[in-house]
Amino acid sequence: MERLHPMHLPQEKNAFAPTPPMGWNSYDFFDTTVTEADVLANAAVLKEKLLPYGWNYVVVDIQWYANRPNARRKEYQYLPFGNLSMDEYGRLLPDPERFPSSAGRKGFRPLADQLHAMGLKFGIHIMRGIPRIAAHNRTPVLGTGVTADEIADSCSICLWNPDMYGVRDCPAGQAYYNSLLSLYAAWGVDYIKVDDICNTDNQIPGSTRAYQGRHEIEMLHRAILNCGRPIVLSLSPGPALIDKAWHYRQYANLWRITDDMWDNWRDLKNMFARCELWQGQGAIGCYPDCDMLPLGRIGKGFGAERDTHLTRAEQRTMLSLWCLFGSPLMLGADLTQLDAWTLSLLQNRDVLDLLDPRRTRRQVLRDDNIAVWTSLSPDGDTLCCGIFSLGDEPYPARIPLEILGIPSTPAGKDLWAGEPFRTPNDAIALELEPHGCVLLAFPMNQ
Amino acid sequence: MERLHPMHLPQEKNAFAPTPPMGWNSYDFFDTTVTEADVLANAAVLKEKLLPYGWNYVVVDIQWYANRPNARRKEYQYLPFGNLSMDEYGRLLPDPERFPSSAGRKGFRPLADQLHAMGLKFGIHIMRGIPRIAAHNRTPVLGTGVTADEIADSCSICLWNPDMYGVRDCPAGQAYYNSLLSLYAAWGVDYIKVDDICNTDNQIPGSTRAYQGRHEIEMLHRAILNCGRPIVLSLSPGPALIDKAWHYRQYANLWRITDDMWDNWRDLKNMFARCELWQGQGAIGCYPDCDMLPLGRIGKGFGAERDTHLTRAEQRTMLSLWCLFGSPLMLGADLTQLDAWTLSLLQNRDVLDLLDPRRTRRQVLRDDNIAVWTSLSPDGDTLCCGIFSLGDEPYPARIPLEILGIPSTPAGKDLWAGEPFRTPNDAIALELEPHGCVLLAFPMNQ
Amino acid sequence: MERLHPMHLPQEKNAFAPTPPMGWNSYDFFDTTVTEADVLANAAVLKEKLLPYGWNYVVVDIQWYANRPNARRKEYQYLPFGNLSMDEYGRLLPDPERFPSSAGRKGFRPLADQLHAMGLKFGIHIMRGIPRIAAHNRTPVLGTGVTADEIADSCSICLWNPDMYGVRDCPAGQAYYNSLLSLYAAWGVDYIKVDDICNTDNQIPGSTRAYQGRHEIEMLHRAILNCGRPIVLSLSPGPALIDKAWHYRQYANLWRITDDMWDNWRDLKNMFARCELWQGQGAIGCYPDCDMLPLGRIGKGFGAERDTHLTRAEQRTMLSLWCLFGSPLMLGADLTQLDAWTLSLLQNRDVLDLLDPRRTRRQVLRDDNIAVWTSLSPDGDTLCCGIFSLGDEPYPARIPLEILGIPSTPAGKDLWAGEPFRTPNDAIALELEPHGCVLLAFPMNQ
Amino acid sequence: MERLHPMHLPQEKNAFAPTPPMGWNSYDFFDTTVTEADVLANAAVLKEKLLPYGWNYVVVDIQWYANRPNARRKEYQYLPFGNLSMDEYGRLLPDPERFPSSAGRKGFRPLADQLHAMGLKFGIHIMRGIPRIAAHNRTPVLGTGVTADEIADSCSICLWNPDMYGVRDCPAGQAYYNSLLSLYAAWGVDYIKVDDICNTDNQIPGSTRAYQGRHEIEMLHRAILNCGRPIVLSLSPGPALIDKAWHYRQYANLWRITDDMWDNWRDLKNMFARCELWQGQGAIGCYPDCDMLPLGRIGKGFGAERDTHLTRAEQRTMLSLWCLFGSPLMLGADLTQLDAWTLSLLQNRDVLDLLDPRRTRRQVLRDDNIAVWTSLSPDGDTLCCGIFSLGDEPYPARIPLEILGIPSTPAGKDLWAGEPFRTPNDAIALELEPHGCVLLAFPMNQ
Repeated sequence: MERLHPMHLPQEKNAFAPTPPMGWNSYDFFDTTVTEADVLANAAVLKEKLLPYGWNYVVVDIQWYANRPNARRKEYQYLPFGNLSMDEYGRLLPDPERFPSSAGRKGFRPLADQLHAMGLKFGIHIMRGIPRIAAHNRTPVLGTGVTADEIADSCSICLWNPDMYGVRDCPAGQAYYNSLLSLYAAWGVDYIKVDDICNTDNQIPGSTRAYQGRHEIEMLHRAILNCGRPIVLSLSPGPALIDKAWHYRQYANLWRITDDMWDNWRDLKNMFARCELWQGQGAIGCYPDCDMLPLGRIGKGFGAERDTHLTRAEQRTMLSLWCLFGSPLMLGADLTQLDAWTLSLLQNRDVLDLLDPRRTRRQVLRDDNIAVWTSLSPDGDTLCCGIFSLGDEPYPARIPLEILGIPSTPAGKDLWAGEPFRTPNDAIALELEPHGCVLLAFPMNQ
Repeated sequence: MERLHPMHLPQEKNAFAPTPPMGWNSYDFFDTTVTEADVLANAAVLKEKLLPYGWNYVVVDIQWYANRPNARRKEYQYLPFGNLSMDEYGRLLPDPERFPSSAGRKGFRPLADQLHAMGLKFGIHIMRGIPRIAAHNRTPVLGTGVTADEIADSCSICLWNPDMYGVRDCPAGQAYYNSLLSLYAAWGVDYIKVDDICNTDNQIPGSTRAYQGRHEIEMLHRAILNCGRPIVLSLSPGPALIDKAWHYRQYANLWRITDDMWDNWRDLKNMFARCELWQGQGAIGCYPDCDMLPLGRIGKGFGAERDTHLTRAEQRTMLSLWCLFGSPLMLGADLTQLDAWTLSLLQNRDVLDLLDPRRTRRQVLRDDNIAVWTSLSPDGDTLCCGIFSLGDEPYPARIPLEILGIPSTPAGKDLWAGEPFRTPNDAIALELEPHGCVLLAFPMNQ
Repeated sequence: MERLHPMHLPQEKNAFAPTPPMGWNSYDFFDTTVTEADVLANAAVLKEKLLPYGWNYVVVDIQWYANRPNARRKEYQYLPFGNLSMDEYGRLLPDPERFPSSAGRKGFRPLADQLHAMGLKFGIHIMRGIPRIAAHNRTPVLGTGVTADEIADSCSICLWNPDMYGVRDCPAGQAYYNSLLSLYAAWGVDYIKVDDICNTDNQIPGSTRAYQGRHEIEMLHRAILNCGRPIVLSLSPGPALIDKAWHYRQYANLWRITDDMWDNWRDLKNMFARCELWQGQGAIGCYPDCDMLPLGRIGKGFGAERDTHLTRAEQRTMLSLWCLFGSPLMLGADLTQLDAWTLSLLQNRDVLDLLDPRRTRRQVLRDDNIAVWTSLSPDGDTLCCGIFSLGDEPYPARIPLEILGIPSTPAGKDLWAGEPFRTPNDAIALELEPHGCVLLAFPMNQ
Repeated sequence: MERLHPMHLPQEKNAFAPTPPMGWNSYDFFDTTVTEADVLANAAVLKEKLLPYGWNYVVVDIQWYANRPNARRKEYQYLPFGNLSMDEYGRLLPDPERFPSSAGRKGFRPLADQLHAMGLKFGIHIMRGIPRIAAHNRTPVLGTGVTADEIADSCSICLWNPDMYGVRDCPAGQAYYNSLLSLYAAWGVDYIKVDDICNTDNQIPGSTRAYQGRHEIEMLHRAILNCGRPIVLSLSPGPALIDKAWHYRQYANLWRITDDMWDNWRDLKNMFARCELWQGQGAIGCYPDCDMLPLGRIGKGFGAERDTHLTRAEQRTMLSLWCLFGSPLMLGADLTQLDAWTLSLLQNRDVLDLLDPRRTRRQVLRDDNIAVWTSLSPDGDTLCCGIFSLGDEPYPARIPLEILGIPSTPAGKDLWAGEPFRTPNDAIALELEPHGCVLLAFPMNQ
């Protein structure tokens, strides 16, 4: 078995995420409205029903520091020039109205403590940079003699969120990021999802400004190592830049490979092209990220609470692809409303086992009708094969065993059906439902 | 030690090139003028002086099928509408004026036999596609009922060479490539360097037409497997497309990561950016290719025979980077005029050992002044470190051992000096000459 | 009344087309199948019914030199490597099977004579360049010592038609174009529609190769002046390049501002954006060209003879825009099947009068729902105003007279209804049908 | 004589600039440091020496509202987050430290009064948008119930100046611009040079965001008409977008066709390409603008006061091209230090007469060595011809009279030499000095 040149990565940061992170994220259901109570209610379900299967992260997504940021939701997803909670060093604090335990400048520490006591890990979302208002008010940077206006880059802004200026590449800028991560470490944060940094111009494909936060990725990495706590670094939004694959691997743990994934077939089908592109680019501690799973109940904060629009076939396809590819898994559902069928999807150990970063994976083929991926176990004993229907009609797939590298007439297992699977000849022949898939495991040394 | 996700590549073709190919290529010295006598004279030197060090390929480059293609060299590198030797099935044959042993339709078989008898391997250059003249003359395609005009894509041409039309993606097109590779196998060809295929529009960065030969890569791959001879597949020209990294790995053995490399610092310095981009993308049997080494005497066929314009420091830098990165090595020099110093450069076993594709390599840093690469031996016992000066002035480098992952105060070896190297403190501190480098090996478990 | 800087254009060529050419073109109905009989049958109708209204050109479109080019129409619009009629100097001749009067090397002279006798003008379509087969066969270039291979640019091809190579920018290349135009002049050609020259890469917006035929435009211009006959020069395909507006004006009479216009609302709506862009860029003898009018019966040669899919409202909108904008008008219909309603559309003198290139025109506004254009007569006495519905629902338009520059409460004329039009207040208020328009003329000095 | 389609432009705004504006601008010498005293000192020279020749505008350029914006000039051209003078409605006021007469909220009225009393006109530079600090402070918008944060577009910033946010396209946004222009009208402003609006992304050629200020151009136009004062609207920076030519003409008086023009041959030579592109695009009241003339003493505020680096030949070339093309003329020199030679350049009535927008102009030819322009007087009696050397060596030019459209053997005038010019044969034959030119006038009806 030949192998890609492994990179020489004796990097401490890779140990922070030995497997692709799994958990829950507030965004798909709550948008900017999430409260402490919401977080705890979801965490309770996570602990009870999903933690035994490996789902252990709880991530509070965007604008937890903003007061009523959804006040004019029809006009603005992120209210510009609104009121933000901030300390005297230009560091954002949880909005005490939405996160009461943070009152008295306690930050997220009380919430993190509760989650840790439940056996869970705690993550937060942040925007790249320093609050614009800190720069305009010239607030001091902790531990330095400089003020925010001297480290804020007045021409580096996020193209879709009004809160921050980018931080200049200078020692005082590093000091600011160090002060941020020290605060997060003190709070007990285990994971930061940094936004407006993986692709800083995702509205224009091939934009020459898409990586203007490059130095800030490196600064965040150094600030994490400096803070003394193993905080996972997740980068958003996608699509990540394939020519920066080596740089993401060097400095981050996760990076988004598409723009936001929502509950429609277009987004899901597109992920096959992205996974094709990013195959072979991950490593232990380094995960191309297919984005959150818009399953169950979602959309409330966006003004349209709904069951996911993905069909059951599509949901299985999504889970299968994410796992075959080795993506992080973050649930977007409101877990307090989780139905039994969706839950069963998330409790399939055979499928979740595929996330193991030591597995050997590749796309075998992809055309308009079908995609096939294989994933070999680290010991080489078992090959898992996913066969996906990409067309809109039932599709009679016929996959020669030869192109899968499988010995003839194997006895396998259908991982979603949980049943034995036998194929009588030299090919796997199946009728696939539209947008559906089968996930089969075969022993390699019968 | 963490590792990249290895791709699942149980592919026969990877065994055709278990290590990066090393050898001699006619282009840099002869351009389109190379003759059988030239090839044999160079092969004789290769066998005597370099074969013991692993240099074993002899590659005849572009337009061996053309009669006096350099007749109007000042106007045309490749004379358009010239006379090409071709068989009745639209397959090009060596020009008998330049390759006398091929007369009587014997093709390259006699030359290949001679080289094989010397213990060498034989490679040829071809252009993607089918000769235009075959299409206009509607010559038959061997083993099919169709003629060349039916498989030639009249709108798919090379932007810089006038000889061929691209081949359509159809069974008769595959039959044509099969007929080609069968012929090459019969000749005893071990290696094909296919041009106008890796990047079909390298004149415009980001061109949307840069991969129009994609299906022809796959057809060539299948034709090689079909021909029954383990022929190495090398793709030109660069720059290869990073978003097709997975595709090159799937179907080819080598692919060029820049446009032509010549003997100037601009091209050489640029290779550091390309190696940065392509680090971690190789595997056993899959090699990003830094292009030929324009060393020694070069340029005669181009009208300007000369010693390489690269300084000795630059030549060492070139060899060091190619080896650290794991690139194929093809000599462009006229070997019959090879000087002792250049020869010594090519006989350094310590340096050539770095090509081992099982090594773990990465770029540690790169800025305007300096680049640093490391390469770890497969057993993890030895770390080699290359420190490169990219500036035009002598440069006092200071590399903390920490960022190299080297235990403190190691006793090492300077691979070019062939002497022990000791560094007294926690960093490697050196004065680098402009465009120069040091290549140091350290034991990892002292 | 302010005016654009007029260009200083004392150019003979502008006198060749003192008004936008009007006539009939074979393409929309016949594709590559048109015959001499077809041309004459259409010409007869043109003469009888439309010549009195100014329609006087008869243009034979693409591949009149090819023998049965539609033999494999489902696979190829333009059969590659087919049989072309050509003289000994690499000049294409009409296919005698389709144009019998051309037999005996008489070319288009007999047909042109017939058309001229009817009071009509005769135009032909040609592809930029010299036949590929002439280059491969090294045919002589008339009046020079060189052969076609020396003037053909082997890397300059049309991306969608297989017949030609571009001609190099050299004296022998000019000689070839001179020989072409001399032949056309001898035939009595009045108009050439040159293809693959206005935009040589219209498949990729912003392509850097879109104007590689620039020198050939200049060579054709010189060849026309050299031939001694006032031949109109029309350039295709579009979209023409706005940054070359000055160059088209300098050397050509017509240039296409979009890719092919067909009988669908998408193409028609898009023309409003193109006319916005190109407003103010024409002059006497210099016409941005909105392409042929796909009216009446079309599509037979394409395998789908049909009545135009444009609604009557859309057809009026098309005619109105073309005339307000000042575009050439070429009918795509099979005139032998022309219905009375369509004919009436083409016989409205009030509307056709708007083509006068001395008129002053501008787009007053354009948004998603509506577009408004005005056109002032050369004497400033009459303002014509076109109000167009761009939406898919009936639209209540209200256009303040102020923005049109019309005196209050004018008595006007509805040009399509042929009736008086009065607007009682300070605005024109109308209910527009979807995709429809009104065309109103007002006296300016009541 | 044929003419371009004139646009129908009965627009009041065109009367505000019946000829290309000529005058003085503070930028090239003072950068952001200009003071009231500087302005008056330059105005005094302008009035005395240049006003009789038509030079009558005095324009105060960028950041007149900022307090010591050059305090950290080496780091920042425009100090970010600095102190700006602003009224309670978010309208910037002159910095009273630099413009003492503005104290007590009198704004530029006292300065304008002084200049008007001298017979001069007064212009100011402004940045597109509303001050960022006004948005963050939520200052009221005059005459509305809304505050600045509601009209500021938090994601629309200038990429090189830190002061403003773009204004949203809404009634309150229009109200803000109306309030601005009412203030300027009250001050007596005759001309506004609006920056960050003509090309809002001039750092990336072809940027899709280059016209994001489009609606603000229209809003400014409406605000000018609304304010009741004929204020000239000048747009910066270039390069203007050729596909927006019609839009600039509709709404503005001047628009910059390059990025900043400085005193070097590269910038000057490049202007020939830009003038080629923009020929034929102007009209009365509508002027493509070649930017300020970096003559005499310049550069003080930039930290490098110097005599212009342009040679005398280059300076004549610059003036000749600007006048032949019909560009506005704004002097960058410190007029108080103006030398006699430079002054003579600016007092040549023959040359300045070429600015007349009723003239007919075109580029006759341009290649690597030479450019030729002609300009015909409105009555058609006189043709002026500029012949420019673009190469770096003396150049023997030979221009056939035929391509100029000049009758044979004319007696002409050399406009720079002020002497008769005779050419004995059918061509103008001259030795041009490197980067130099001749400007010749010929009678057309001898």
